Amino acid sequence: MAERFVSERNLRFLLYEVFDVTELLKYPYYSEHTREMFDMVMETALRIGKDMLYPVLDEMDKNQPELVDGMVKVHPVVREFMRECGQGGWIGADAPFEFGGQQLPIMISLVSNFIFAAANYSASVYPGLTTGAARLITSFGSRELIDTYVPRMFSGEWQGTMALTEPQAGSSLADITTTAEPTDKGYYRIKGQKIFISASEHDGVDNVIQLLLAKIKGAPAGVKGISLFVVPNKRIGEKGELVPNDVNVAGIYHKLGYRGCPINQLSLGENDDCRGFLVGEPHKGLMYMFQMMNESRIGVGMGATAIATAAYYAALEYAKQRPQGRRLTSKDPTLPQVPIIEHADVKRMLLFQKSVVEGSLSLLFQCSKYRDLEMVLDGEEKERYSLLLEVLTSVVKSYPSEMGVLSVSQGLQCLGGYGYCEEFPLAQYYRDIRIHPIHEGTTGIHGLTLLGRSVTRNNGRAFQVFVEEVEKAIEKAGKEQELVSYAKNLKNALERLKGITTHLVGIAVKGEVELFLADATLYLELFGIIAIAWQWLLQGIVAHEALKSGPIDADLSFYRGKMYALRYFFAYELPKVETLAIRLENNDGLTVEMQPELFEG
Amino acid sequence: MAERFVSERNLRFLLYEVFDVTELLKYPYYSEHTREMFDMVMETALRIGKDMLYPVLDEMDKNQPELVDGMVKVHPVVREFMRECGQGGWIGADAPFEFGGQQLPIMISLVSNFIFAAANYSASVYPGLTTGAARLITSFGSRELIDTYVPRMFSGEWQGTMALTEPQAGSSLADITTTAEPTDKGYYRIKGQKIFISASEHDGVDNVIQLLLAKIKGAPAGVKGISLFVVPNKRIGEKGELVPNDVNVAGIYHKLGYRGCPINQLSLGENDDCRGFLVGEPHKGLMYMFQMMNESRIGVGMGATAIATAAYYAALEYAKQRPQGRRLTSKDPTLPQVPIIEHADVKRMLLFQKSVVEGSLSLLFQCSKYRDLEMVLDGEEKERYSLLLEVLTSVVKSYPSEMGVLSVSQGLQCLGGYGYCEEFPLAQYYRDIRIHPIHEGTTGIHGLTLLGRSVTRNNGRAFQVFVEEVEKAIEKAGKEQELVSYAKNLKNALERLKGITTHLVGIAVKGEVELFLADATLYLELFGIIAIAWQWLLQGIVAHEALKSGPIDADLSFYRGKMYALRYFFAYELPKVETLAIRLENNDGLTVEMQPELFEG
Repeated sequence: MAERFVSERNLRFLLYEVFDVTELLKYPYYSEHTREMFDMVMETALRIGKDMLYPVLDEMDKNQPELVDGMVKVHPVVREFMRECGQGGWIGADAPFEFGGQQLPIMISLVSNFIFAAANYSASVYPGLTTGAARLITSFGSRELIDTYVPRMFSGEWQGTMALTEPQAGSSLADITTTAEPTDKGYYRIKGQKIFISASEHDGVDNVIQLLLAKIKGAPAGVKGISLFVVPNKRIGEKGELVPNDVNVAGIYHKLGYRGCPINQLSLGENDDCRGFLVGEPHKGLMYMFQMMNESRIGVGMGATAIATAAYYAALEYAKQRPQGRRLTSKDPTLPQVPIIEHADVKRMLLFQKSVVEGSLSLLFQCSKYRDLEMVLDGEEKERYSLLLEVLTSVVKSYPSEMGVLSVSQGLQCLGGYGYCEEFPLAQYYRDIRIHPIHEGTTGIHGLTLLGRSVTRNNGRAFQVFVEEVEKAIEKAGKEQELVSYAKNLKNALERLKGITTHLVGIAVKGEVELFLADATLYLELFGIIAIAWQWLLQGIVAHEALKSGPIDADLSFYRGKMYALRYFFAYELPKVETLAIRLENNDGLTVEMQPELFEG
Repeated sequence: MAERFVSERNLRFLLYEVFDVTELLKYPYYSEHTREMFDMVMETALRIGKDMLYPVLDEMDKNQPELVDGMVKVHPVVREFMRECGQGGWIGADAPFEFGGQQLPIMISLVSNFIFAAANYSASVYPGLTTGAARLITSFGSRELIDTYVPRMFSGEWQGTMALTEPQAGSSLADITTTAEPTDKGYYRIKGQKIFISASEHDGVDNVIQLLLAKIKGAPAGVKGISLFVVPNKRIGEKGELVPNDVNVAGIYHKLGYRGCPINQLSLGENDDCRGFLVGEPHKGLMYMFQMMNESRIGVGMGATAIATAAYYAALEYAKQRPQGRRLTSKDPTLPQVPIIEHADVKRMLLFQKSVVEGSLSLLFQCSKYRDLEMVLDGEEKERYSLLLEVLTSVVKSYPSEMGVLSVSQGLQCLGGYGYCEEFPLAQYYRDIRIHPIHEGTTGIHGLTLLGRSVTRNNGRAFQVFVEEVEKAIEKAGKEQELVSYAKNLKNALERLKGITTHLVGIAVKGEVELFLADATLYLELFGIIAIAWQWLLQGIVAHEALKSGPIDADLSFYRGKMYALRYFFAYELPKVETLAIRLENNDGLTVEMQPELFEG
């Protein structure tokens, strides 16, 4: 077990120096908070992560949840942690006071959620899902729904989930078949199957509340006929007691990783006695759910970044302690061996990890700040942040997920043979993180979303706003001699992205939609590299400024380390834009043309 | 479980059409064989793979070997398979008749080993390791050692291993401390610890023979003092009976994957009664071992290709059967869903896998043919093939390993959520293949080997010979209108490699060895892409020729599929050369400069 799983120093750097959360305190909505309170939140989260979650990381992996007599047995720490989260106000941390929340900035709940996820990703999902589900109810549900469910979700007594996927409808939600039959008693009768539902039943809470998509009988075909329901596993009986609501666990999946949290298959209404309560208006369910999905997508990026961060520190610790071989300049076998961190190739692998995890975390803070500002502003300003979030959601979900997988793999590689052994933590991180390019929309789906929707909608307005933000950073960096070459390189890359976007939109305009989107995944990859380069430039601007004031000791190392990671990213990662651009400019339709039978043989 | 794990058609294509194994029959050494015999070998291997190995793939993964009372219990199929391999002549397939082998071309043993590994990688390691260990004894051992050990290794009664790694000496063999003390009885007394030794004790055989590196007392420091020994777990007693040889299993590792084969920690000579028998001359052990290591390295590339191949066919089968969503041109939700293989992005993922696994397999056949020719030729011709093997060994080990990991990951991605479930085969393949960039030299070590030794030695003679081979293919392809653009692209990429090699050697000449080798891993990656592009061009030449003759049905699809995969590789993979080249030209010494403490904070 490594000594640490996050860097408090880096969290403070992003929170206070790069994205200055205290700027928010001037808005009435956040005015009851202070920097001291933010510090306390971080310290408490670190303590919980360190004392409660991290010590059972391995144990929860080795003892997977199992289905026993219809109930899913989970590790006892789940109940303990959910209660802690309830009592400490963590689940409703960024919910408004009016619903019983703490009304903290999302940047602050990012800090605590990130710490929990880095300490123990599986454990962090239980309260995280509950937060998202509760927010859906507070945003779109009736006052009665809110009063009935939200307090006991915020208290950690009840679990919240999102129940979308069905056996025949994974990426294609248009095809869900779970039905909701209206009754004259104010509820709907639910019937259907849901698969891959995280935490949808377990003995770490007293009840589970599914936020579930279904079709009201007679609804239009496709996504336009989807409605959102609250479906509790136990409903409230006439005397206020909990009674079974005909929601049954039909199976539990045994997963590659993320083993501390169950993913179940649910059967609803086997006995025609499953009651669901409509949230908002009929047929608007997918629109509502997208609020939770977009939040969850940022949450996936956060989870991936958190796992990769913990893996990075574990690899770093090993590299500092493990002697092996000698410097290339002194191979005399009678000299003592050096720690492997002395080897350039190991430093390259560590710089890769550092640049991926700290770049991803920076983008997460960036998006969280946009969410916080979107909350308190109006009119054009508010719209600006909404547009930025629209274009960045797929990126902040996918870059940390895809690159996080590679980052953990490099961490594992640093440990050599030990990396491959389950006795060391890297193997688990390698298994755990692999879910992130899959859940909440696969990377392929996000490529289509980014290029086919976010970038092109409203005449490319969202894309334009993103470009302006990156250009602001380029302009600022361009004024500093030490940063001018980075500014120039990012400008060139951004021009490449603009050119390719225009080129691809030209194909869309001609109506060749399959050709237009054929390499959308590569477009997303390219976009992600530029977004992270932008974040590194922003971090570099702050670190460079800080170095001017002559910091000493740990601070000097910290800021210099940031400058090296910036340099690494621009030297090794940013040039990948060129390869992707070459392909994206060459729309020969190869993958559209290719026929299934040609894979045979 | 997927229907198939290899393509017999593709094996025939490579064996007979691209690399024409029958050309070897003209040499006296291979003259007793016929094409019919080769066919029979392939068919028998396919039957064993299908009937014996593939059905227990999942079972061997779920029931890992365990250490019970000093003995490692493995799945019963191991004994059955080792006996089958002994009786069928598989272990000694490519060994000379004089030692009891079948004297088959290595291209043919590649076919059977590949089939076994694709069916069940863990199972395939037991006979594979034994083949390599036996070859070490026949190449360098005394007649007495050969007669004592090799027949019972070829018969599958005894397991062979390679025992190199020690706790303090992983990548750095110079630092091994296992000692061998001479006695006046013809044997040495061995004492030490070995870790990460595959199959080094188990109940699937009657005895295990370690080919072990140790230092004779008083030997020179470093690699120049390493000797090679045969150390049986049970030695032959005075009456021919097997008696314990003081080799004890000190522990067993629990691994991320490759769980059907134990990796043990060994303690030798705890009771001063472990006897080892010197192979060849003292202090030449590392040189001898390199024969087995180079063979094992090609074997690692083969194993990675085999796992990625099985994963590819499993993903392909799923993609053909799984309906989800609709074509982008017809999103009407009342229409039936289409199989996901209809989506361009899924075809892209499958083409990536196809291009990686079939490109890698082609390079494996190429290297095997070089080994076969090296065996029967003399003088300059022989040297040419030795040089080609020298420069290609790190490449054929590393490209399939690194890219195989990514290929399996894309296969897993094709299955979406099911890919992440252990109920489907992709999760195991994903775990199994991750060992390959680690064992038999990590990718980082191979980067140093390729650039620091193979490419530069003898004034770059080996590199030059490789360039000539690639240029031959370019010239041939340049004569065909349909292939001319591929020829041109590969020529440009090859020129880039030549330019970068000259550039880097220039740095070495100045004595800046750390700077010279700082990005050796990226050099290896670039080299690998060019080597695989070369192999795709060779396959394209043959497929293009075959298409001229108007093949029908399955053959038409097969050759057209090859042309699409060639096109994919050149459109999506070859451009990666540019990104790597940009970095390799820019030797700013970033990773040499970076100091360990700057990772803190």
